[in-house]
Amino acid sequence: MAKYDLSLDTVFTALGDPTRRAILERLSRGPASVSELAAPFDMAMPSFMGHLKKLEAAGMISSEKDGRVRTCALVPGAFAPAKDWLTAQRDLWEARLDRFDAFVTQLAKDQTE
Amino acid sequence: MAKYDLSLDTVFTALGDPTRRAILERLSRGPASVSELAAPFDMAMPSFMGHLKKLEAAGMISSEKDGRVRTCALVPGAFAPAKDWLTAQRDLWEARLDRFDAFVTQLAKDQTE
Repeated sequence: MAKYDLSLDTVFTALGDPTRRAILERLSRGPASVSELAAPFDMAMPSFMGHLKKLEAAGMISSEKDGRVRTCALVPGAFAPAKDWLTAQRDLWEARLDRFDAFVTQLAKDQTE
Repeated sequence: MAKYDLSLDTVFTALGDPTRRAILERLSRGPASVSELAAPFDMAMPSFMGHLKKLEAAGMISSEKDGRVRTCALVPGAFAPAKDWLTAQRDLWEARLDRFDAFVTQLAKDQTE
């Protein structure tokens, strides 16, 4: 039950910050340079680079330098582990509700028989 | 773009820990007492209670005390904000891929005409 999954730890922790989510939202629309990504934020560049590093360490974004410009891109499937985990929980929950429904239906049936 | 969403912050941060995810996995199957939840973990009770408190503060679980037993339950829709955000990103990403496909198809068409 307490299976340790490093990728879920790093992915969910990466998602727990509004600046990092905004970076991912921007990159979902297509690649962007670091300065383009940083522009909307009133943040010192070293702090902003720290956010990019966390996203890169989590395997969610990749970056490439061409001359002086570093361009970032979303890694395909970046959201898949997190989404899969959440879907599995919802499925367990819904299966439980279905069993509860079946139980209540059977109870009602037993009482009317 | 950098809209601050406290619930996403707390929900994703809550999900970034393997103990807390294991608690949520257990509660997806139905309510459980604190001692039942704590049993699989080799962890001091105050640390374990800290995890429960974080999940409760994130609005993902609720708890109720009856005599000496505190029972925890998953809050319905606990995973919805996180899942909705991830789905929105995937949709953006797929829309981008569709536009790219359309562009490549048009390019190929232009070259054969």
